[in-house]
Amino acid sequence: MSETAIDTGDGWFERDELDALRKRLPIVYVDAIPVRVDSDGVIQHVGMLLRTPRDGGISRALVSGRVMYHERIRDALARHLDKDLGPMALPRLPVTLTPFTVAEYFPTPGITPYHDPRQHAVSLAYIVPVDGDCQPQQDALDIAWFTPEEAVSPVIQEGMADGHGALVRTALASTGRLV
Amino acid sequence: MSETAIDTGDGWFERDELDALRKRLPIVYVDAIPVRVDSDGVIQHVGMLLRTPRDGGISRALVSGRVMYHERIRDALARHLDKDLGPMALPRLPVTLTPFTVAEYFPTPGITPYHDPRQHAVSLAYIVPVDGDCQPQQDALDIAWFTPEEAVSPVIQEGMADGHGALVRTALASTGRLV
Amino acid sequence: MSETAIDTGDGWFERDELDALRKRLPIVYVDAIPVRVDSDGVIQHVGMLLRTPRDGGISRALVSGRVMYHERIRDALARHLDKDLGPMALPRLPVTLTPFTVAEYFPTPGITPYHDPRQHAVSLAYIVPVDGDCQPQQDALDIAWFTPEEAVSPVIQEGMADGHGALVRTALASTGRLV
Amino acid sequence: MSETAIDTGDGWFERDELDALRKRLPIVYVDAIPVRVDSDGVIQHVGMLLRTPRDGGISRALVSGRVMYHERIRDALARHLDKDLGPMALPRLPVTLTPFTVAEYFPTPGITPYHDPRQHAVSLAYIVPVDGDCQPQQDALDIAWFTPEEAVSPVIQEGMADGHGALVRTALASTGRLV
Repeated sequence: MSETAIDTGDGWFERDELDALRKRLPIVYVDAIPVRVDSDGVIQHVGMLLRTPRDGGISRALVSGRVMYHERIRDALARHLDKDLGPMALPRLPVTLTPFTVAEYFPTPGITPYHDPRQHAVSLAYIVPVDGDCQPQQDALDIAWFTPEEAVSPVIQEGMADGHGALVRTALASTGRLV
Repeated sequence: MSETAIDTGDGWFERDELDALRKRLPIVYVDAIPVRVDSDGVIQHVGMLLRTPRDGGISRALVSGRVMYHERIRDALARHLDKDLGPMALPRLPVTLTPFTVAEYFPTPGITPYHDPRQHAVSLAYIVPVDGDCQPQQDALDIAWFTPEEAVSPVIQEGMADGHGALVRTALASTGRLV
Repeated sequence: MSETAIDTGDGWFERDELDALRKRLPIVYVDAIPVRVDSDGVIQHVGMLLRTPRDGGISRALVSGRVMYHERIRDALARHLDKDLGPMALPRLPVTLTPFTVAEYFPTPGITPYHDPRQHAVSLAYIVPVDGDCQPQQDALDIAWFTPEEAVSPVIQEGMADGHGALVRTALASTGRLV
Repeated sequence: MSETAIDTGDGWFERDELDALRKRLPIVYVDAIPVRVDSDGVIQHVGMLLRTPRDGGISRALVSGRVMYHERIRDALARHLDKDLGPMALPRLPVTLTPFTVAEYFPTPGITPYHDPRQHAVSLAYIVPVDGDCQPQQDALDIAWFTPEEAVSPVIQEGMADGHGALVRTALASTGRLV
């Protein structure tokens, strides 16, 4: 097995093969917006990963990743939260998998608020309260927490990749929170 | 103030006065379905209160109660959970107040699955994961936990008052769980 | 029966009596956002009523009104749409009564985005596509249709009463439309 | 291009190639439940296609199909409704693309209520009111309309393939209709 092979659950893809598929099929994704809530369930802070993206520079992103073959959405969500926030994050997965929105990422900008130059992804997006201690993993430099007001401020929004700024605003609006 | 007066937030009603209003205005309610979830967010058990209802006998019910004047829905939900499950229940209130269903309780049976001989109530219904220790309060004899399969079984369903059996089934269906 | 009596379904209230109750009980409301959609279901225009509000001046508002005693939410929604848009509006009522948001109107400003100096109202809010011809009724001077972009523009938002501007923005966000 | 090639929007797959991918990646689907509603939006009938499935016999199914590369969900939904119900069906696409449930079809039975021996599909499911005249197309023998009570009856449920019976029950429950 090549060093560039990627675990796909029951199967493996070579990096080139997956890159090619991403130009031919929509890919199933999950997006998670980590939040800190108070004892009444009100969102106090929104968590964002500080990343060095594909094209250089630095950007802020949410927890996001592919659903593997034969993987349940719930398991994919748990896996990506664990991978990005670390094993002590204690995320509270939703009781229902109906997403607050379906984010359609197109390689062509402007069709929707979401954009991914690598692929067409259809992403189920969830708000996930996190109780534990979050530690940046792998390619993340840091995890920062912002109040809802900060999270939608221009300076933070502009630093978010791929339409994740729009996703945060949609998430907050879905909770009745207009900021 | 009479001993039968009822706290209504900023105001008080005599019992007779409230009973009269219940025949003239729809009353705002919240219903909460207490659940135990596993670490993946999957519902393991549904909590039900064992009560001695108005008309005698014994019945099972969910957490349910009125929203007071000038009370936020979130506060009403917290108050009724605390009142029915005790102060150590540690309920996880939802981040959004969009209910999984709106239960319309009519004094006339058969208009909807929900029925309340005392009043017309419009109830916002929520699933609430509960982490802590629940203790029956006041008029409740016990709190029992049933698997989703048990909760929708005829023997349990028949023991539920006011259409709460239908509410449990609707709640489980809203999570994609058909039982 | 006095000329100021108000139909409440099975009962009637004197205006004074209802005004008094509005200070003591939350009142059940429905809000409807009339929209024009294209053949793909995409919102093209949002309808707003031009009204002369209680405190003088002119303001824009959505379809909004009380649920009567023993009235189903669906019937209240149909009744208020008919009353405000006229009998030829041909509204498409939603198949589910789960609202896109629950708007809590408090007499005290600032608790939520919604405010009603007369009362504490708990309102179930729906987006309602309208196919037919809308004619202003009774106290409405006009019905105007705005694109989503116009509807959230400062000039229109500022002219909306009671937090209806926030309701339009929340409605559009709930459809994945960030404007 | 081979006669067995399949249109995938911007690209084409050979039948063999697509079959192979279906064993390696989850495939994005949409499911639509065609319904007839009355003027109040209440579901009167549920539409089902009578089909001769892959393994012989006859079964009932909903409108269902793949989302193509670079195709919007809304366009995929319109395309499959048109393909299965004909050009005169006049479907009313939802204003929001948040599904009433996400159906996870696994090739292994029993993981979820949904099963597809060919593939792992993640399907966004919608209720779609249909106003016009529906005509069976291509591989469908007939389109039949059932009342909600009939649609969930054992005789109809048993004739439904791939968990579509569960999907109908979940759809009705999501509208507050327990049958």
